[in-house]
Amino acid sequence: MRDFSKDHRWLSLNTMTVRKQGDLQTIIDACARHGFRGISPWRDQVAAMGLARAAAAIRGAGLELSGYCRGGMFTSDPSRAQEVIDDNRRAVDEAAALGAPCVVLVVGSLPQYSRPGSPPSKDIAAARARVKEVLAELLLYARKAKVALALEPLHPMYAADRGCVNTMRHALDICDELDPQRSGALGLAIDLYHVWWDPELKQQIERAGRERILAFHVCDWLVPTKHLLEDRGMMGDGVIEIQRIRNWLEAQGFSGYCEVELFSRHWWDQPLDTVLRTCVERHRSVV
Amino acid sequence: MRDFSKDHRWLSLNTMTVRKQGDLQTIIDACARHGFRGISPWRDQVAAMGLARAAAAIRGAGLELSGYCRGGMFTSDPSRAQEVIDDNRRAVDEAAALGAPCVVLVVGSLPQYSRPGSPPSKDIAAARARVKEVLAELLLYARKAKVALALEPLHPMYAADRGCVNTMRHALDICDELDPQRSGALGLAIDLYHVWWDPELKQQIERAGRERILAFHVCDWLVPTKHLLEDRGMMGDGVIEIQRIRNWLEAQGFSGYCEVELFSRHWWDQPLDTVLRTCVERHRSVV
Repeated sequence: MRDFSKDHRWLSLNTMTVRKQGDLQTIIDACARHGFRGISPWRDQVAAMGLARAAAAIRGAGLELSGYCRGGMFTSDPSRAQEVIDDNRRAVDEAAALGAPCVVLVVGSLPQYSRPGSPPSKDIAAARARVKEVLAELLLYARKAKVALALEPLHPMYAADRGCVNTMRHALDICDELDPQRSGALGLAIDLYHVWWDPELKQQIERAGRERILAFHVCDWLVPTKHLLEDRGMMGDGVIEIQRIRNWLEAQGFSGYCEVELFSRHWWDQPLDTVLRTCVERHRSVV
Repeated sequence: MRDFSKDHRWLSLNTMTVRKQGDLQTIIDACARHGFRGISPWRDQVAAMGLARAAAAIRGAGLELSGYCRGGMFTSDPSRAQEVIDDNRRAVDEAAALGAPCVVLVVGSLPQYSRPGSPPSKDIAAARARVKEVLAELLLYARKAKVALALEPLHPMYAADRGCVNTMRHALDICDELDPQRSGALGLAIDLYHVWWDPELKQQIERAGRERILAFHVCDWLVPTKHLLEDRGMMGDGVIEIQRIRNWLEAQGFSGYCEVELFSRHWWDQPLDTVLRTCVERHRSVV
């Protein structure tokens, strides 16, 4: 396993972590200041800055992208199917322009939450079927653009509204069906927050293998967790055995960035430099 | 599938649902008033009333027990192993005295949360191994007492603190290992709140079969969910396809009570009779 204790060359910042503290330019500058090599921006931040300017600023700061957040929300009123695919194709195009290795996909679930205004449904099986259809279609486009699609299994507490692919096993079943050749075009974004609890985690990481591990997101699970969405912990403050799981990933040949992604009211209230300094410290000590 | 639209003879009340509104005697009286046939009390409520008095009051009101809540919290400081097993044996004895068909088990997870004061650990694999050991030991005792043990897979959002058995598959793996003969002494409490999201739910219900389905708990998953523990929804107010899943259970031969179990600040604030009346209405219309 790589030794992270002496440097943070494999640390990447997901810009969600500090989105309340400043715009993308501010975050890029902070990353450069703290010696980050990787960044993973969100689409709305890139749009606010302008795609070309964002790409130039990221390159100018010497940053690589570890991913691009996010595509998905595949389920909708059937009349909006074209809107969904167009939106996701634009995400792929933006990722290509930014030089991102992958688009992270939060696939959506019941259509009224995935694309508000869609008629309400409780049929999660139908949502799962639809997700696979749209993913298959998007994959054709992403292959041509040479941008990988990183399917992110989401914690089951988001199964109704954010994503209906909730286990590594389910995500890998989809990957094996749509990309049986393990081409590298389709794989997983493995976020510890979503998968740490899974009794099959080690086994499914082994099943994923190097070709299917496209992104690795770290944070921690707090006890108690006070909010379903916005109470993730900084690495080391919770109960996840981060190094044990990273070891499983690296045993498969994963050698990419560890991307810090927090949704946290607590950390959004801290100064930008405090957050980045803490990320670096914890990356070295507990990741 | 049974038709629940015309009566509520298969409705049971888990006393957690109205625990803030009154003591066990008050709840028993309310159940009788609203024509419930089933009840599932919690240990602390029984203890407050006295075991013999509680048993007499429940029988006197013409109520059957659909279960007894709850045993478990198996993980602890090793020095407290005897305390854990003694506590759970008492739960079995109480269940026998009350005439409960099963003790529902919330198995615990990291020891510092399962039995406060135990030294902190992040090793969920160790917790899972320990749960299986204690369960095996308790099963010997429960068999003699002729009380079944109903292992309750908990939603993964409780994996750190309340229970480290988080999927039907995992729970059934444990059952198959400890009770390969499918004797009826060990099975599942299937609570929709915990398992509704599972893409393998139908398949694992089929695997469970009639012998392993010991209890069926109903409520609903709200979007948004505002609190991890105390924001369950009344049946029909959320996104769970209750009838579809009940149909899967009944296809295996399940013909027991549908036990309403809400942990809900909203419903704890309503008058007792309002809650029970609503349970009856929703049982008839959406369960």
